[in-house]
Amino acid sequence: MVFTIWGLKSIQIRFKFDFFSFCLERFHIMSATAAPDYIDVLIIGAGPAGLMLANWLGRCGVKTRIVDKRGSKIYNGQADGLQCRTLEIFDSFGFADQAWKESNHMLEICFWNPDEQGRLRRSGRIPDTIPGISRFQQVVLHQGRIERFFLDSIKEHSDISVERGVLPTEFSFDDAKAADFEDYPISVTLRTLSEEEAAPPQQQQHHRSSTGRETVSDGLFRSNLAADDTNELIQAAEKRNRVDQVELVKAKFLIGCDGAHSWVRRQLGYVLEGDSTDYIWGVLDIIPITDFPDIRQRCAIHSASHGSVMVIPRENKLVRLYIQLQATEHETGGRKADRSWITPEVILQSAQRILHPYKLDYTYCDWWTGYQIGQRVGNEFSLKERVFLAGDAVHTHSPKAGQGMNVSMQDTYNLGWKIAHVVKGYSDGSILKTYQTERRQIALDLIEFDHRFSRLFSGRPAKDILDEEGVSMEEFQAAFEKGNEFASGTAVDYGPSILVAKTDKSHENIVSKSNLATGVLVGKRMPSFKVLNQSDARPWHLQELLPSTGRWRLLVFPGDLTNPETKQRFGNLGEKLGARDSFIRRFTPPSQPVDSVIEVLTVHAGPRISIELQDLPAAFHPYDEKLGWDYWKVFVDDQSYHEGHGQAYAKYGINPAHGASVIVRPDQYVSWVGEMDNYEEMAGFFSGFMKEQTNTKSEE
Amino acid sequence: MVFTIWGLKSIQIRFKFDFFSFCLERFHIMSATAAPDYIDVLIIGAGPAGLMLANWLGRCGVKTRIVDKRGSKIYNGQADGLQCRTLEIFDSFGFADQAWKESNHMLEICFWNPDEQGRLRRSGRIPDTIPGISRFQQVVLHQGRIERFFLDSIKEHSDISVERGVLPTEFSFDDAKAADFEDYPISVTLRTLSEEEAAPPQQQQHHRSSTGRETVSDGLFRSNLAADDTNELIQAAEKRNRVDQVELVKAKFLIGCDGAHSWVRRQLGYVLEGDSTDYIWGVLDIIPITDFPDIRQRCAIHSASHGSVMVIPRENKLVRLYIQLQATEHETGGRKADRSWITPEVILQSAQRILHPYKLDYTYCDWWTGYQIGQRVGNEFSLKERVFLAGDAVHTHSPKAGQGMNVSMQDTYNLGWKIAHVVKGYSDGSILKTYQTERRQIALDLIEFDHRFSRLFSGRPAKDILDEEGVSMEEFQAAFEKGNEFASGTAVDYGPSILVAKTDKSHENIVSKSNLATGVLVGKRMPSFKVLNQSDARPWHLQELLPSTGRWRLLVFPGDLTNPETKQRFGNLGEKLGARDSFIRRFTPPSQPVDSVIEVLTVHAGPRISIELQDLPAAFHPYDEKLGWDYWKVFVDDQSYHEGHGQAYAKYGINPAHGASVIVRPDQYVSWVGEMDNYEEMAGFFSGFMKEQTNTKSEE
Repeated sequence: MVFTIWGLKSIQIRFKFDFFSFCLERFHIMSATAAPDYIDVLIIGAGPAGLMLANWLGRCGVKTRIVDKRGSKIYNGQADGLQCRTLEIFDSFGFADQAWKESNHMLEICFWNPDEQGRLRRSGRIPDTIPGISRFQQVVLHQGRIERFFLDSIKEHSDISVERGVLPTEFSFDDAKAADFEDYPISVTLRTLSEEEAAPPQQQQHHRSSTGRETVSDGLFRSNLAADDTNELIQAAEKRNRVDQVELVKAKFLIGCDGAHSWVRRQLGYVLEGDSTDYIWGVLDIIPITDFPDIRQRCAIHSASHGSVMVIPRENKLVRLYIQLQATEHETGGRKADRSWITPEVILQSAQRILHPYKLDYTYCDWWTGYQIGQRVGNEFSLKERVFLAGDAVHTHSPKAGQGMNVSMQDTYNLGWKIAHVVKGYSDGSILKTYQTERRQIALDLIEFDHRFSRLFSGRPAKDILDEEGVSMEEFQAAFEKGNEFASGTAVDYGPSILVAKTDKSHENIVSKSNLATGVLVGKRMPSFKVLNQSDARPWHLQELLPSTGRWRLLVFPGDLTNPETKQRFGNLGEKLGARDSFIRRFTPPSQPVDSVIEVLTVHAGPRISIELQDLPAAFHPYDEKLGWDYWKVFVDDQSYHEGHGQAYAKYGINPAHGASVIVRPDQYVSWVGEMDNYEEMAGFFSGFMKEQTNTKSEE
Repeated sequence: MVFTIWGLKSIQIRFKFDFFSFCLERFHIMSATAAPDYIDVLIIGAGPAGLMLANWLGRCGVKTRIVDKRGSKIYNGQADGLQCRTLEIFDSFGFADQAWKESNHMLEICFWNPDEQGRLRRSGRIPDTIPGISRFQQVVLHQGRIERFFLDSIKEHSDISVERGVLPTEFSFDDAKAADFEDYPISVTLRTLSEEEAAPPQQQQHHRSSTGRETVSDGLFRSNLAADDTNELIQAAEKRNRVDQVELVKAKFLIGCDGAHSWVRRQLGYVLEGDSTDYIWGVLDIIPITDFPDIRQRCAIHSASHGSVMVIPRENKLVRLYIQLQATEHETGGRKADRSWITPEVILQSAQRILHPYKLDYTYCDWWTGYQIGQRVGNEFSLKERVFLAGDAVHTHSPKAGQGMNVSMQDTYNLGWKIAHVVKGYSDGSILKTYQTERRQIALDLIEFDHRFSRLFSGRPAKDILDEEGVSMEEFQAAFEKGNEFASGTAVDYGPSILVAKTDKSHENIVSKSNLATGVLVGKRMPSFKVLNQSDARPWHLQELLPSTGRWRLLVFPGDLTNPETKQRFGNLGEKLGARDSFIRRFTPPSQPVDSVIEVLTVHAGPRISIELQDLPAAFHPYDEKLGWDYWKVFVDDQSYHEGHGQAYAKYGINPAHGASVIVRPDQYVSWVGEMDNYEEMAGFFSGFMKEQTNTKSEE
């Protein structure tokens, strides 16, 4: 047999080692003998949450490995709604444009309900995304493409590669090492599966039924109606008695992005808390042949007595239908929460009953599955800020609202930069506590939203005002409209913490002055309006100036610089920021460019031609010996030649006669709003968690 | 030696063939013995013009080969301005977004001139692109990236691949076959060069001067100051006496996109007519270190007595400087039109003198070159509509206006679909005559523009109103502003022809009624405003509905469909278009979808919710057995949820109470404007050059 010694990263020495194969039945014996691989972060699971994290850590240069038990990525079906906020995040990594281009855009939601004669009618239309809430609108794109964007991004910006068909089998945690963030408290044994073990049991063959309908693949194996197969995989692999593909990893951090059946969560003994319901839904991704008028709109359709359908139009002429299944006793044999009776034909027939008198059929089905509605949240998200859980490992719910993948990716978008800053020694470990405080609340909000939404959607429409068991269609539409802000992802509002200085005294002595920028809400993501580059007049959305590079940003809105007093205050701030002992310099490693940890960006109130960049203090447009002046740090709120006026000061609620400064986290959430020139408070905020670099290193 | 028999496309049999090498000194002997490769189109030259054509023909499924004598593509320098119109064309092929994202956008032009004391001052600012002229603005991006977009596009959409290091060495034309467009009148012998022969003599090594300035590469070898090396390449290859890489190609069409020294042009005996001047210019692509305030703007700088500089800010912090060289006798040794004295240092020193008192230096130079201003146009663009010349092969001029690459790509954008339609048998050969009539006029306009522009730019500024030898700076700025429409590429207005039915009787009996759509000019490209998809409310720029697929489009603007009379007229048109013997059906091969040669798109005047797609005649949203109804053909001029109101009817100058129809060529130029329901005139227009498909083939 082939025996690999791991831990020697670039050289893998292979022995023919037949004799020992008898006594090496259990791989931890071998792990103990080979040198372990020391890494900063080990990610289990390469779905959207895991890939987001690997991508983030790759951008920040953190030594990361990511493994997934499946041997190949997903090609059909799965989650596919993208929130406005998710697109903003994609844009911060440079690939929102691709998602925007390939996806189907959802503009309008139509409500269909029985009229007084019980006949299906369009009862209302609302915009799918609340106008003005974001520069993106909600879109739909196959999860496989989204994973591809991450994989391409990871490949372009790091040397991380997803290790597929690799399963964690043992975990231990050394409590004694937990407090030292330079140490490795985590040990995980990884086993590489054979190709056939790693292949998902998804039926990949094309299937054509006697009706001429064609089906590509089903997703039941990943549905919550299916049992977890992790233990079976481990047992089968152990039985095979092959130890050639076993490895011990020592990590500073371990992140479980390994789904609803999370292996990592089970190691920690944590549980998901909540309930499931009896509602069973089917999902069909088809090219519809229909006379239903709104098949290319998002629709919520309640039939009088046959259940509900949600229509989600997709890319490539596909439409996804979420269809409430009302199986007869005959069809199910009484086994309601069992998937065996669910087929594309059963789902289609349910849809046909609900859509009557409109016709629905298909010849091409891209994917289908079934699921049972339920809502659960993890009781704990972290073990001593060294092991974290994210995504479906800590929240599961129904898919119809298009939230799951988004909230999962946003979990690790929240976590990634914090881990990177601790690993790189910029921040102390205290910032990691905010992961659970910030994200568990979001998970609770999510299942509350989903619970309410699912109940309204699965219920029978009320026949009249006295029908108390039925769901009022007015209430349903109102809930839908209200849910739209939540569903956009832009409503997320992180509570007070060391990273979020709200207006009360939650953050030591640092208190935001929200009245200085009434459109900038501390704890929420920085809203985006257009501003012009001072040097070349090009319009940019402010968020485009905040790419996910791991940097903090100090946004200075000085106001009108033609006002001598304003110019003076701005000049004073520039002098302090530019000083050799400024907090920016103290928290930045001396060998790195001055803008690599905290970047200063200015947006003045204009007009653009009233000032020259050269007249501003160097701190606002730093000079480099080889590259000259920096022309990409000073912007202005002014009329553009081709894209109108962003009205940024007005929309941010900043008085051009007074100004304001804003501290924005590396994930674009607002930490602090204060006086434009309040250097001391800015310094105080960062001193709460950042580590002085000049004292520990003297490279300069 | 290795001997390859060509013409067997998938199998290349190689012999060891030492004995024959003595008698096979001249490769045409060998060509005569091997079976020739029969193809539709052979393109010589894989610069932007050649790649545009290969891309077009690839999309249309035409059997094409493209060869280039250079062994590798361009990596630095070269032309890099992209007109609005070029971006529109890129968008029609699906990659404008990439160019838009990677490029530097040019928003403003600043004029710098000596004031009364002779000191350099900013004397004016104008927008670089006239607002409203296009949905894109002029941008700058390295030619290598543009070639990459084409190469990726060609790879994705066809099986064409650029054959590099391949040189045509012999050409013959069989006049007797010229009239039959199914025959192959063209014979070309191709020779594959060795790697070292094909390598351009560009100095690719990094060079660091004693001043610490770093230079990557120079482009003098491709400058018009350098001699052509094609003959040397052929002679050297012949001397080597290797016949292993020689091949005979028989083609229906041959296109010379092989630059100012075009080998194809020389075979035809055609010449470039025009003059060159004594003006010598240098070009530097540098990361500038300067206190000049407008270094990130496009600037036209006239010094009092040291010549002129044009500043073109680029991507990746680079700036391109076009610098008028005023070499002293000492520097040149009197050899003014000789490149030997041109170095980056000489060019930099000229720039420093012109920019005084501002400082300019660099440590990084990406590329540099020099050129002599001149303007020339080919006397003929075509041999019997079987051999065509395009790009620099038929027009050369100075590069500063950023026009050359654009006009070259637009040459072949004009030609590509015409060749494709003749090859595929959709059209008779007569449409090919319009290539020369349309594009030679553009070339003449271009050199006229360049001549005027260069003279104004190279001249010394007038000291005062009496200084007649000097150039008036007011005249210069006025010329610049006027030139801006020309420079956008949107002013192109093709004259009357079989493809362009203007308002006079130029096109047989088909006469456009321009008053029906005063914003749609026959002969110019279809302008673009936003409209909404009827089925899902998504906003699209109208041009996005006209991708370069090779299809003609009939755009029907019926007006207000709630008006019964309008609905009746629209219904009548739908009935005629949908009939089995309609011109659309007659000119489309029976085996192909009904929209594959002429696509019908509708834009009604709204409101969107006033109609249901299902109520419109099927001709406007065709039904397919497997795919259901077509939801991507009917649009509306209405308010969008997030992107405002396109006001398309108002901007196209169409009265919603009356309507209009527009025939748009596959290259987005307008052929005809007429009554919305004038089926007979539409049919008459297409009958002028299209071939009936049902009579010749009976596949149905």
